[in-house]
This record gives sequence, structure tokens and C-alpha cells, in this order.
Amino acid sequence: MRNKGLLIVLSGPSGVGKDTVIEQVIKNDSSIKRSISATTRPARPGELNGRDYLFISEDEFCKNITEDRLLEYTKYCENYYGTLKKSVEEILADGQNVILKIEVDGARQIKEKCPDSLRIFILPPTMQELKNRLLNRGSEPYKNLEIRLKRAIEEIKFSLQYDYIVVNDNVDECAAVINSIVNAEKFKPFRMKNIVNEVLNDEKNTYR
Amino acid sequence: MRNKGLLIVLSGPSGVGKDTVIEQVIKNDSSIKRSISATTRPARPGELNGRDYLFISEDEFCKNITEDRLLEYTKYCENYYGTLKKSVEEILADGQNVILKIEVDGARQIKEKCPDSLRIFILPPTMQELKNRLLNRGSEPYKNLEIRLKRAIEEIKFSLQYDYIVVNDNVDECAAVINSIVNAEKFKPFRMKNIVNEVLNDEKNTYR
Repeated sequence: MRNKGLLIVLSGPSGVGKDTVIEQVIKNDSSIKRSISATTRPARPGELNGRDYLFISEDEFCKNITEDRLLEYTKYCENYYGTLKKSVEEILADGQNVILKIEVDGARQIKEKCPDSLRIFILPPTMQELKNRLLNRGSEPYKNLEIRLKRAIEEIKFSLQYDYIVVNDNVDECAAVINSIVNAEKFKPFRMKNIVNEVLNDEKNTYR
Repeated sequence: MRNKGLLIVLSGPSGVGKDTVIEQVIKNDSSIKRSISATTRPARPGELNGRDYLFISEDEFCKNITEDRLLEYTKYCENYYGTLKKSVEEILADGQNVILKIEVDGARQIKEKCPDSLRIFILPPTMQELKNRLLNRGSEPYKNLEIRLKRAIEEIKFSLQYDYIVVNDNVDECAAVINSIVNAEKFKPFRMKNIVNEVLNDEKNTYR
């Protein structure tokens, strides 16, 4: 019996290393596919359209909003970010698991629409380390750095509303924990109901 | 900062392979220790006092009940089974995780007393396979076999009230899933509160 795939939502402050962690999580478990968010922000050096984000115009983004084609969306630092329903539903229907990188507002919207989704928050080891990572990325003007750090603090306060909180001190360890969480999630009773019923029905056929 | 260990409760019908699975789970993760249940039932061939159970007299068991020294207890197939509080508390206070093999009534009692405990139910792949395993064990008179199979069906109906349900089709795979579940459990928000607060306090010291 094929189960519908799992919707995994990953959040964490800018600079915490979400993309690198997701890459390793997918490398560890080929049943997990990444769904790419759409955004109106310009691509950073090294970012690719269709790999890191779908980089679309504000007009196109607003058309997706009015036509109800988004699972969630938000505006953050003057730019829109969102997830197209279609891209997620196609993967889930195929029985595979989807991982989404989404900020806290979007994660809340998804929990309302998909209560069975699994929400994981990635925490930096310290705020100083988060600042260092943002500085090393070197892609932010100083003004944006301060905005991102203030925003990070607000986001971390929301972490306690997630299903799990994992510290990204070491990418391999952080990814391994996330793989454990995804693996464990499949064995929650509400996902195992059919299998329990199969065993009980088998008993009826065998002994009655 | 040292966290108190995790109390893991493992249930499943007689013959499903709980002891073999627990042995493998502990082999995979040395932070998990087994707490041995006390029972008034006679030892089966190959069972050792202090390894498989604490085999005690009915008088001694009843003294433990009246002196409130048990975390849970039950009577099953004319015999008492129970867990001494002391043996569990010593391991948890040391920051290690305890795994207990307990039937469904005892697991319910523990959930009431320790709501943070992690309850895992082991399911046989089929009822026929469970019957085969009981027959191969060869330690049961036929009358007990029938009692155990009927009891198994009642227990499996309770499985949906556990935190997780895992099928024991293959011992190594079943144990690996349980290790994933235990690993994931450590990252639930209520267990991560102190770490989130440390990161937020670090921010206050660094930036304000």
C-alpha cells in the first residue's frame, strides 16, 4: 500500500545554513525531494533559477496570489517569497517526501492548511556564530545584516512552536538528526492505522 | 548542561520479539540502558534472573505494591509483572535513557505518571507470523498459546494510543527505526527550551 508522502517544512534564521543542510538531508535519503520556493528577490551570486529559487517578477507573483496558486507566501525585506501548490502536490501524490525551506509566517500558514506536515526549526549554535556566517557569505549590505539579525531573534522565539528544533553546529550531524526525525515520523499511529488494521483483519481471516 | 534521560516504554504482544529488538537497540546506542521488570512468573528455559526479569515471589511482589515501590504493575496470565521505581530513577538521574518492556496496562499507568515518556508499540508483520514465533519458542503449553493470541489482538487494538508503532519484520530494521525515534525525541521543543533560551540570552549579551 502506497502512502502519501510527507510534507517537511524547514525554517531557521537567514544564514543558519538551511540550504547546505537540506542538500545533505536529500543526499542521505533519496525519497526526499526539494520543492523550490518562488521569490521576487534578486538572485545572489552563485544562486540559480530553478535550483535555489524560482526567481519571478512581482507582477507574476501577485498573479499567483490572486489566482490562489500558493500554499503560503509572505513579504520579507521588501521581497515576496512563496510556495506554489502544484509543485508540492505533484511530489506528494507520487508517494515521495517534500522538503520546503520556509520562514516562520509561511510555516504557520502551512500547518493550518496541512496539519500533518512536519515542521523543523534550525537553530544557530550562538547568535555570534550566525553573525559570522552572514558576514562570511559577504552578499549582504551592512544595513540588511542588522535587519536579518533582528529578524533572526524574532524567528528563534517562534521555534518552540515547531515540531522539532535542531542546532546546526555541524552540517552532517544536523542533517543526520533531520533524517532521523523524518524516519521516525513515518511510524506515528495516524500514519500506521492501515497497517494495524491489516494485521487485525489478517487475524480475523486466519482464526474465525 | 545535562538533561534528564528519556524513559522509553516498549510494548507488543508476547512473541513479537521485544527482547531481541531491545538487545539490538541497546547495541546501537550505548546511552540506552535496560531496566529489568520484576515478575512472579517462573523463568522460562534460558531466562536468567537479573537479565531477563527479576524473578520474585508473590509475597515479595505484594510487599512492593503495598509500600508503593512500583512505577506500574499488572497481573497477566495469573502472574504479576511490574517495574520498581528505584531501578528506573537511578538511570534517568544519571542522564542516561531507560528502556522498559511493559504490557499495555503498565504503559498506560506510566504515561499518567510520566507524561514525557516515549511509548513505542511493536507490531508483528501478521498474526500468522506471531503464532509461528510463539510455536517456535516452544515454551508454551497449547492452552497458553491460545490465551496469548487472544490477548495479542486486544493489545494490538491499543497500539494506536502509543506514540509510535513499528513492525518487527526484521530485527535490525525494527531496532534501527526505534533508534531513530529515540534520537528524534531529544529534539522536541519541550526538551530544547534551555538551548533556545541560551541562544537568545547570548544575543542579549552580545548586542545590547
